Amino acid sequence: MEKRNKGALVSVVMGSDSDLEIVEDALEILKDFKIPYEVRIISAHRSPDEAIEFAKRAKERGVKVIIAAAGGAAHLPGVIAANTELPVIGIPVETEALKGMDSLLSIVQMPAGVPVGTMALGKAGAKNSALYALRILALEDKELNSQVIKYKEKMRKMVKDKDREVSRKYSFYSHE
Amino acid sequence: MEKRNKGALVSVVMGSDSDLEIVEDALEILKDFKIPYEVRIISAHRSPDEAIEFAKRAKERGVKVIIAAAGGAAHLPGVIAANTELPVIGIPVETEALKGMDSLLSIVQMPAGVPVGTMALGKAGAKNSALYALRILALEDKELNSQVIKYKEKMRKMVKDKDREVSRKYSFYSHE
Amino acid sequence: MEKRNKGALVSVVMGSDSDLEIVEDALEILKDFKIPYEVRIISAHRSPDEAIEFAKRAKERGVKVIIAAAGGAAHLPGVIAANTELPVIGIPVETEALKGMDSLLSIVQMPAGVPVGTMALGKAGAKNSALYALRILALEDKELNSQVIKYKEKMRKMVKDKDREVSRKYSFYSHE
Amino acid sequence: MEKRNKGALVSVVMGSDSDLEIVEDALEILKDFKIPYEVRIISAHRSPDEAIEFAKRAKERGVKVIIAAAGGAAHLPGVIAANTELPVIGIPVETEALKGMDSLLSIVQMPAGVPVGTMALGKAGAKNSALYALRILALEDKELNSQVIKYKEKMRKMVKDKDREVSRKYSFYSHE
Amino acid sequence: MEKRNKGALVSVVMGSDSDLEIVEDALEILKDFKIPYEVRIISAHRSPDEAIEFAKRAKERGVKVIIAAAGGAAHLPGVIAANTELPVIGIPVETEALKGMDSLLSIVQMPAGVPVGTMALGKAGAKNSALYALRILALEDKELNSQVIKYKEKMRKMVKDKDREVSRKYSFYSHE
Amino acid sequence: MEKRNKGALVSVVMGSDSDLEIVEDALEILKDFKIPYEVRIISAHRSPDEAIEFAKRAKERGVKVIIAAAGGAAHLPGVIAANTELPVIGIPVETEALKGMDSLLSIVQMPAGVPVGTMALGKAGAKNSALYALRILALEDKELNSQVIKYKEKMRKMVKDKDREVSRKYSFYSHE
Amino acid sequence: MEKRNKGALVSVVMGSDSDLEIVEDALEILKDFKIPYEVRIISAHRSPDEAIEFAKRAKERGVKVIIAAAGGAAHLPGVIAANTELPVIGIPVETEALKGMDSLLSIVQMPAGVPVGTMALGKAGAKNSALYALRILALEDKELNSQVIKYKEKMRKMVKDKDREVSRKYSFYSHE
Amino acid sequence: MEKRNKGALVSVVMGSDSDLEIVEDALEILKDFKIPYEVRIISAHRSPDEAIEFAKRAKERGVKVIIAAAGGAAHLPGVIAANTELPVIGIPVETEALKGMDSLLSIVQMPAGVPVGTMALGKAGAKNSALYALRILALEDKELNSQVIKYKEKMRKMVKDKDREVSRKYSFYSHE
Repeated sequence: MEKRNKGALVSVVMGSDSDLEIVEDALEILKDFKIPYEVRIISAHRSPDEAIEFAKRAKERGVKVIIAAAGGAAHLPGVIAANTELPVIGIPVETEALKGMDSLLSIVQMPAGVPVGTMALGKAGAKNSALYALRILALEDKELNSQVIKYKEKMRKMVKDKDREVSRKYSFYSHE
Repeated sequence: MEKRNKGALVSVVMGSDSDLEIVEDALEILKDFKIPYEVRIISAHRSPDEAIEFAKRAKERGVKVIIAAAGGAAHLPGVIAANTELPVIGIPVETEALKGMDSLLSIVQMPAGVPVGTMALGKAGAKNSALYALRILALEDKELNSQVIKYKEKMRKMVKDKDREVSRKYSFYSHE
Repeated sequence: MEKRNKGALVSVVMGSDSDLEIVEDALEILKDFKIPYEVRIISAHRSPDEAIEFAKRAKERGVKVIIAAAGGAAHLPGVIAANTELPVIGIPVETEALKGMDSLLSIVQMPAGVPVGTMALGKAGAKNSALYALRILALEDKELNSQVIKYKEKMRKMVKDKDREVSRKYSFYSHE
Repeated sequence: MEKRNKGALVSVVMGSDSDLEIVEDALEILKDFKIPYEVRIISAHRSPDEAIEFAKRAKERGVKVIIAAAGGAAHLPGVIAANTELPVIGIPVETEALKGMDSLLSIVQMPAGVPVGTMALGKAGAKNSALYALRILALEDKELNSQVIKYKEKMRKMVKDKDREVSRKYSFYSHE
Repeated sequence: MEKRNKGALVSVVMGSDSDLEIVEDALEILKDFKIPYEVRIISAHRSPDEAIEFAKRAKERGVKVIIAAAGGAAHLPGVIAANTELPVIGIPVETEALKGMDSLLSIVQMPAGVPVGTMALGKAGAKNSALYALRILALEDKELNSQVIKYKEKMRKMVKDKDREVSRKYSFYSHE
Repeated sequence: MEKRNKGALVSVVMGSDSDLEIVEDALEILKDFKIPYEVRIISAHRSPDEAIEFAKRAKERGVKVIIAAAGGAAHLPGVIAANTELPVIGIPVETEALKGMDSLLSIVQMPAGVPVGTMALGKAGAKNSALYALRILALEDKELNSQVIKYKEKMRKMVKDKDREVSRKYSFYSHE
Repeated sequence: MEKRNKGALVSVVMGSDSDLEIVEDALEILKDFKIPYEVRIISAHRSPDEAIEFAKRAKERGVKVIIAAAGGAAHLPGVIAANTELPVIGIPVETEALKGMDSLLSIVQMPAGVPVGTMALGKAGAKNSALYALRILALEDKELNSQVIKYKEKMRKMVKDKDREVSRKYSFYSHE
Repeated sequence: MEKRNKGALVSVVMGSDSDLEIVEDALEILKDFKIPYEVRIISAHRSPDEAIEFAKRAKERGVKVIIAAAGGAAHLPGVIAANTELPVIGIPVETEALKGMDSLLSIVQMPAGVPVGTMALGKAGAKNSALYALRILALEDKELNSQVIKYKEKMRKMVKDKDREVSRKYSFYSHE
């Protein structure tokens, strides 16, 4: 099984397809930047052998960065990081009761020895996981680096345009 | 009263019938595994005599594992554990204001001497309480043990099937 | 390696020998009750293959209950529970910064499908993990069950003795 | 046993004599106000029968207010309140790992039907439990009411004296 | 103004009429028990002079217990307690962002010297505030005491009836 | 760009126009008090150069107080405060997962050297940011000071009117 | 009493002289900038009349900014802000059990209508309270404004000097 | 200034030299792996121009990964990430009052657009920041990749050795 998906540079893994909605912005960004990626459903608890097999084979299949989303006692990013030497990016998924504080702490508080680069909770974190993967990949890819710079410039321009519009519309100067 | 319900191996107790919705997955699992169970409404605060009577008589009635769900200052699992020598499994129920952090700490932080095996908050915890009861009962029941193994295998297969489907549908390889 | 330690009914596992101090009361209780146990250092992150191998072989080696202590992003109890059908008892170990809230949530918030019976943080939880294992083992061991009842009775007597002593010494009645 | 201690108007209960240090200021205040009190060691978990017996008999023994201190999954105040119609005052005791957040929530978050008047964590709460008992007892005791007013006046004077001293010593006026 | 409302034994105070919905169960219980009460809108921050005037005059107007509901940086119960020697019961009101953790801590963590008997967050706490007031008033009112005992007995009966109904309907015994 | 908006005494800044809804009460208050203000969209992360430029030029453009609203890892108020010597008022915006606890701590916990006057979370904080700006501006503006006093008096009157209405409607005196 | 201390521009208030240690850096900064200040011990709970009298008279005595430090259910800054139209700066003092989370929320979560500019917990917050007062006072004091700019420049230089020293001492370049 | 330190692949930045103790394990690991690094003291708040200048020039100076440690309202990693396209790794430093929960949330909860790969709190996070940087650098450096694999193997061996020693010493088998 782990022989397929040749060509993916980024692997986006999650424990359940209910998390697809969370990561969709990450997938969109990767696609916009033309980074080939695979999307995988793997559970550290319900399919543990597959999780380990996946992590151990990822590098030899050409994957460079692994993004893993998980909620609750979120062990997936850590279990993957323990079985690969690739950089792993963790996305804590919001949970119903504890609002994702459980997910966040289960991912970010990794013990010394096995790091996971943790992003913000939920959709903002998912989006940033793709942008972080791009920053890593761009280190050895000048073309990609230019695109990242353009993307930042575009964000900046959007804020500036909005500033002009809002400033004009909402400011108030009639002082007496 | 405590003479009835002969035959139940698992007793599922909660303080109010409003918690029935939380534990229904637990009941379904126990039924699927053909484990006889009783469902009881007992309150550590509003019917304290009944709670203690229930706990003291459970073992002699043939009960082997007690599952207790409670929310807020959730004393039910602890009060039961104090009055029986059976293993007690606690399910913290989510609360409106504090989202169940109160329920969780009131159950899990039992002082040395009286243990409660605490599950996750809400429905995931309820489901797991049944699976944990099965793991305990399976220790001396080979047939049940095989069923537990099959259940785990089924979960694993479901994840793998989902993986294949999602991987095919969402991965993206057109790199240039 | 996993062939050794024949005879242990309880396996007490932790990620680092710095946790030995936390679990020592658990070991003492098990020894007092003459329950053979093994103590193991296994890390879900630093020795993941050993963790899975251990979990998969535990039942065939005769182990009935696994106690796992872990801190921070505490994945050990969950990773073990994912790879065995034995009941797993988790002890969250206090951490320096977050005081064990990270450990607690990483252990107790297991997703539906793979339960861990979670104890209180730190030494109280460690002691209770042994008492919980005893409650499970006593289900099919009348002699052990009598011992558990005696233990509870002893605790009760200690409280009553202390009550008498303190009440005599600290109460104050000179009202006018 | 519950026949003794005739004459106590306030009963100060705790689960372990290690909490004596926390409540000692409460005892001192009660003694200063000449309120007869008893001090009891009773555990909701380790001596549950005694806890219930105590709660059920307290009123007939002449007790008017019960102060209960407890830590962790702190069930003592709630269990007592469930078994008496007297007002119960709860003192959450600080815990090592969670700093008493567990104690506080286990006491204050009582479900509708069984109230516990909860004080601050630790020594401030203990001191206030005595002052709160005095406020209740003073409702029908004019002499005691005058003493409570004097106590408040004394506190006020102490603050004012300190204000004068500190203001003189630390203020700084040399402006240019 | 503070001369009116003669006859109220309990004063139920809140900072805004938006909290009326929270306390309505408390009012209903007091009415059921025929306890005369007044309802007041007073703010520690927006009408501070009225808050202090109210607190200082409450006792001479015949009030015996003050119930104060407040949310956020909830100073009302504490400010009232500082200006009266009557027992004050605090109800922390749930807030939108922090879910009432701010309200709870602002009320319960009173410094040594000025106690507030704090109830659970929201409606459960409101209901319990009335029941707690009843427990205090019943200390010198045998008739009221009997009513409180009957109320507890009624709650107990409701749980027992529900137990019978649920047990019959949801238990499962077909074991093979 | 930073030359425009001459005349604004208060600058209300936020990272995204989605926060406009949060600050609208602040704008309304400023307008009611006839304080000229500008509204700006500036992001510490997406338009960092603009943020710094804005902060450095604000004073010379005549701005006296800067109000900055931000959510999540909310760096905007701190970054602005680091680049101006004007007083900066921070409004933590509620977030979906962590309910604004992240926003609050990111703004209020500024290290020694660079202060931000932090308001409550969300709309209450926004409203108060305007009132706080007025208190600062009123220090040297007697007319404005009178208006602030009137505003406080109006709030007080509203509470008193509500008190009269609610007290009449909800109090209950038929004691027997 | 409130007639004394003529000349103070900043009033530094706290509930107990045990907080003097927390605010001493604030006093030192004010003294360094030659801002006349008074130091006062006033308690919202133990000397409530004094607190209100103080707040109501502060402006007419020439005070321009009030700094108030408080811990636990920290009502002092809010109670003062309710009784003055001056800007109030709050310093949440760390508490033993809850580490100041109670103090922080009791101060920052003020309801709409009465703002308190809240600083960080403890000594950093205290230091910043003085710097924030300076920023406010500097709005109409060019000389003071220059001093604030110089202070910021000095901080910056200290960081730069430290950077040079540390960079030289700890960097490592021997790459092959 | 930003011309110096040619040759550093990793830049380790912190706001104050008091954090040097936290990051020293990171420096040791980088040195062991012969990765040239620079150590910098830069503050987002006290030396903001330097922070931005540093971030903007880092890539052209040859830096590939930036590690930034910060505590409290920890803006440094985010401010740097906003001004570079290099991957930034954040280390939340434990704080006295809030134990680093403030630091963690201020770093990890970055809004969509500007990612920071966040590590665990304190020394474990610092150590992991170096290991994460190595994983990134090893993507294009086979020799380094082998070293990372060896490091993981060494950790594993240490756990296994400890397991053997502890298992022998602490297990207990005398069952009858």
